[in-house]
Amino acid sequence: MEHGGDIYTEGILKGKKILDFSSNINPLGVPLKFKNNINEALKSVQVYPDIKYRFLKKYIVNYVKNGICNENIVLGNGASEIIDQVIGRIKSICIPVPSFIEYEKNAVKWNCKISFSELKDDMSYNYEDIYSKMEFLDALIIGNPNNPSGGIIDVSKFVPILDFCESNNKKIIIDEAFIEFTAENGFDFTRLVKKYKCIFVIRAITKFFAMPGIRFGYGISGDIDFINSIKKSQNPWNVNCFAEIAVKYSLSDKDYITKSLKWISEERNFMITSLNNLDIIEKAYETYSNFILCKLKYIDCNKLYDICMKNYIAVRKCDNFRGLDNSFVRFAIKDRESNSRLINVLKGGTVKGVC
Amino acid sequence: MEHGGDIYTEGILKGKKILDFSSNINPLGVPLKFKNNINEALKSVQVYPDIKYRFLKKYIVNYVKNGICNENIVLGNGASEIIDQVIGRIKSICIPVPSFIEYEKNAVKWNCKISFSELKDDMSYNYEDIYSKMEFLDALIIGNPNNPSGGIIDVSKFVPILDFCESNNKKIIIDEAFIEFTAENGFDFTRLVKKYKCIFVIRAITKFFAMPGIRFGYGISGDIDFINSIKKSQNPWNVNCFAEIAVKYSLSDKDYITKSLKWISEERNFMITSLNNLDIIEKAYETYSNFILCKLKYIDCNKLYDICMKNYIAVRKCDNFRGLDNSFVRFAIKDRESNSRLINVLKGGTVKGVC
Repeated sequence: MEHGGDIYTEGILKGKKILDFSSNINPLGVPLKFKNNINEALKSVQVYPDIKYRFLKKYIVNYVKNGICNENIVLGNGASEIIDQVIGRIKSICIPVPSFIEYEKNAVKWNCKISFSELKDDMSYNYEDIYSKMEFLDALIIGNPNNPSGGIIDVSKFVPILDFCESNNKKIIIDEAFIEFTAENGFDFTRLVKKYKCIFVIRAITKFFAMPGIRFGYGISGDIDFINSIKKSQNPWNVNCFAEIAVKYSLSDKDYITKSLKWISEERNFMITSLNNLDIIEKAYETYSNFILCKLKYIDCNKLYDICMKNYIAVRKCDNFRGLDNSFVRFAIKDRESNSRLINVLKGGTVKGVC
Repeated sequence: MEHGGDIYTEGILKGKKILDFSSNINPLGVPLKFKNNINEALKSVQVYPDIKYRFLKKYIVNYVKNGICNENIVLGNGASEIIDQVIGRIKSICIPVPSFIEYEKNAVKWNCKISFSELKDDMSYNYEDIYSKMEFLDALIIGNPNNPSGGIIDVSKFVPILDFCESNNKKIIIDEAFIEFTAENGFDFTRLVKKYKCIFVIRAITKFFAMPGIRFGYGISGDIDFINSIKKSQNPWNVNCFAEIAVKYSLSDKDYITKSLKWISEERNFMITSLNNLDIIEKAYETYSNFILCKLKYIDCNKLYDICMKNYIAVRKCDNFRGLDNSFVRFAIKDRESNSRLINVLKGGTVKGVC
């Protein structure tokens, strides 16, 4: 299993219903405003999308704000397409690790030279190391918050890197797939794209708006030539009409956003506290997102995975993340009932029996 | 306007409702079985699709038959992605023209050397010319039926090309985006993929099943190494869950298929006869699809476009198809009411006034 979220191999294909803690999706589910307007998508499916996606970009402009215009935006069939397109334009890249494994996979695919920068023991970025590496590289790709560690970029420590990259025509790709879970705390970098042309922010509606199946991501940058070069090599009509209608109604669903922020604030605290109280958890790392990286003790992630699976729960083993090993596991944060079920399984007799 | 179907620039963005004859979509609209099961898609949107799309491929296996298995299939975010991926693996290609302009655009994008083979005056393929060119080229991409001309491949004349390419390790890419409009007449080449590894068939649900907005196409080949090489370079989860559910219910919607075949048989005859009776039509070419290429007289396609647009009708000017000029236009075949409205506009006082 390369990614979280593969509930097919062990679950659906064997007729089992799995509670999925391996994939980091908002448990509030698909925004009601989108569901209520699904007929608009069913009407539009029989015509080609606007090849320029003018309305769709306008919805994003209204949502992101910060002076962004249509021409600062490039759209993708999921954030995956944007990551692939961006890395395909770069000759050498710094990847802090552990991080989303598609960065490395895409770099390898495009023969892009990679230099890894290991996170510190507390899972914070090693800014000095990144800075020193950037002298010899074209680009940096960095999660904000980072997956699987949950940390965010410390802007004050990051500014020297930004300034250096801006002056030396390098790219800083900031993956903000999980940014909405940080609430309105000013952690997002779209507010700096007008100041720094080197910044390229990647976003999606996958995680916070709970729609991995809809396949929609976008990139934002002040470097319009770079945006246009991606557009030129993309296939026409790369975004489906359900994604367009989902963006239209979800990004403006204030009620959904408010409820989600209340939920994440409460459940993040509950989960961090509960996990840190468990015998098998050495450390649950501080998180700004909707998942928690944990270092295990007395048990490795493969055994834990098997035990959880016997209880119809999927968790994310972290041994295939560069920089981690089989003593790490990642749990999504879900609704209270599910979270309690996980915690009970983790502290239950089955786990202890193995320890 | 590069493609048909851009009803945005002249239509929606100016608040006008346009009758679209420029885009070749089944007017029966989205299959009812899919509409009735849209909630299944809304449920699945909040989980990641199966990264291997095992069920989705099974629906296609059951539909295409001819001994195809899951491993013969590669899935695309629209046929566009498949065309792009296939051409990206080829160094030199024969493109009969006129044909779908994305073939040439993709070949240029990938620095693939192009040799054009002009269709004959009756818009049939020049098989001798194609055969002679294949000696020096890696691949052929050919429409079946062809867009915009509407003709199909004459299998008996095509077999020597197939045999030559099979023996010499060359690729024959057959674009069957419109194949369902030929009914069950044995024109499709999926029945030959087991015999000829050189064949790569491209399909979509865009045209016959009336879902350009859903973005789904697929490729079929007996060359499993070639299929796997495409899969390896694709982004993960490239097909959205609405497309998956649409495939599940549309390909098995017998009632929709029967009605569509009855409609196309009746309206194709009506349109060919009506168009050939018009003063401004020098020739309406024989078609096996749901569109008709016409050579104009007394008027060029730009003037005709303007007149039609004044009547809130969009038609496809053909002057940007290589091998055609401004004396050609393409009309979709729609329902009787719409077809009659078009024919009336074409023979009406407005057009005559210009002639």
